[in-house]
Amino acid sequence: MPELRKDPVTSRWVIIATERGKRPSDFTSMTAAKAKEGFCPFCYGHEGNTPFEIWAYRPDHPEKNTPGWKVRVVPNKFPALRIEGELNRRGMGMYDLMDGIGAHEVIVETPEHDKNLEDLSDSEVGLIIDAYRNRGIDLKKDVRFQYILIFRNYGKSAGASLKHPHSQLIATPIVPKRVQEEINGVNQHFQYKERCVFCDIIHQELSDGSRLVLENRNFLCIEPFAPRFPFETWIIPKKHQADFLNITDEETLDMARILKSALTRLKVALKDPAYNYTIHTMPLRAQGSIFHWHLEIMPKLIQVAGFEWGSGFYINPTPPEDAAKYLREVEI
Amino acid sequence: MPELRKDPVTSRWVIIATERGKRPSDFTSMTAAKAKEGFCPFCYGHEGNTPFEIWAYRPDHPEKNTPGWKVRVVPNKFPALRIEGELNRRGMGMYDLMDGIGAHEVIVETPEHDKNLEDLSDSEVGLIIDAYRNRGIDLKKDVRFQYILIFRNYGKSAGASLKHPHSQLIATPIVPKRVQEEINGVNQHFQYKERCVFCDIIHQELSDGSRLVLENRNFLCIEPFAPRFPFETWIIPKKHQADFLNITDEETLDMARILKSALTRLKVALKDPAYNYTIHTMPLRAQGSIFHWHLEIMPKLIQVAGFEWGSGFYINPTPPEDAAKYLREVEI
Repeated sequence: MPELRKDPVTSRWVIIATERGKRPSDFTSMTAAKAKEGFCPFCYGHEGNTPFEIWAYRPDHPEKNTPGWKVRVVPNKFPALRIEGELNRRGMGMYDLMDGIGAHEVIVETPEHDKNLEDLSDSEVGLIIDAYRNRGIDLKKDVRFQYILIFRNYGKSAGASLKHPHSQLIATPIVPKRVQEEINGVNQHFQYKERCVFCDIIHQELSDGSRLVLENRNFLCIEPFAPRFPFETWIIPKKHQADFLNITDEETLDMARILKSALTRLKVALKDPAYNYTIHTMPLRAQGSIFHWHLEIMPKLIQVAGFEWGSGFYINPTPPEDAAKYLREVEI
Repeated sequence: MPELRKDPVTSRWVIIATERGKRPSDFTSMTAAKAKEGFCPFCYGHEGNTPFEIWAYRPDHPEKNTPGWKVRVVPNKFPALRIEGELNRRGMGMYDLMDGIGAHEVIVETPEHDKNLEDLSDSEVGLIIDAYRNRGIDLKKDVRFQYILIFRNYGKSAGASLKHPHSQLIATPIVPKRVQEEINGVNQHFQYKERCVFCDIIHQELSDGSRLVLENRNFLCIEPFAPRFPFETWIIPKKHQADFLNITDEETLDMARILKSALTRLKVALKDPAYNYTIHTMPLRAQGSIFHWHLEIMPKLIQVAGFEWGSGFYINPTPPEDAAKYLREVEI
């Protein structure tokens, strides 16, 4: 019998098609098609082909826009939002709009074109997370921005247009809808229980174990109870912490370790799938700390059809307990 | 300058990338890949290869499960939800779930394998809409169900696994999230304005005209102000009507006409794109009438990437005013 499961944060109901019970091998036709090759603006020596660098980790080579960096952040050459100007909020008849002000940056994760995030060392992945944090702290100073969305697209079907390993960051003057829904859910749970819903999830998943993939000192990696997509995977800090920007150096290294391991397990189990991940953190101007930041990985394994788009009601052919078992047992 | 626009119903902000301003010809690489061919269970003479028929329009051939029908409704052979059983709502630790009870039906739209909806006559399309209505009225009697979602997937990338023209219907024991968001938005607008937000949209779009594609006596077809996707197209009844199931015969024929014309225009302008459409109507057990049913068409023209999935915040490269102009001026 298929199950209807409710996500405890957003109250979204999801169909878990237990009887179809798709295994990893059923998805391998979706292996990530690589983005097109050609001249790569993110490789050493091509620093002049990107907009001027905003931030870089350059322990030995201090000169900007030259080789020698380990991680490099540049403005997106084709930004979705523009950095210059005022928001100019206004009405248009019954409608509301504002100018598309924001920041859109690219985090080039390594000089090595053919490596991927999971091939780097723990400390190299730590530098990427540190770049996310540094850029967030800097952009938070700009009072026009309400939110900083950090995300990574891997594989063409996940929207990556360049192969060289990179993440992106968009600072927006609004709080994105899905984040606001999570905040509402966290508040609702807090009003009823006087506890953080993510802290409750951590407690339940550690004592249950069936959806737990990995844990280390500071983080756990789970398949959520009501995932929208097969092998949807969350990484959550064990300590209640609303704002990703407050991550410590010790936590950064533990996050690097668990993220590397989670991505490696997904890669092996699902034969290198396309995926997206995003960090959900509290809005920049939110008071108090009723949120619990986390990272969500969404492998692109199935075609999302009309039913899902039209209703926000998803059919997931793989129970998360099965997915967690596959990911725990994968040989890496 | 790109714009941030807010959907007046759901309060979702969308980036309209006015400067990229993609035209129809920029999308033609996404022309609908056809679903695989082979034995077709929906053709005349193959009625024994589907589950027993639930409803059919058979003006001359009354014998069930034989040829001679014009529109035929059968259970989905691989249903997402099961019709037999009780909901069995229960907790599991902190989580909530129930059995996956529901109905999942296929509306075979015509016996003609190689035609498509827009190739049929007005009255033939009217029969399809009438099948939607009839099945909805029947399923509403089942008190386990809260919602009936009617949708059509066209093209492989939109999730269609069979080429023979068909729609689908899923009756669910919950109200889908996106519909509930619309209802909340309609209620919020009503509390503030004492008017229906969709009626306000109709008024504004008819007087403005820049996003209007088509209208007839009972319906209008628009590009919404803050569309998530390029060429997202809505068909809205002019009269305030909460429940699609109350559509009259006259309205059915007018809806057939405007739907045919909208799909034909999308097909010509965008070179036969894959698309989904869904009907949004009020929940089955809702009291009062603070909703306004409509149909949403979502062409599959762009890859939805991590940014969108992770945030619920969409980037749309085509302003709806441009899309409406292309669709108005298309030669059909």
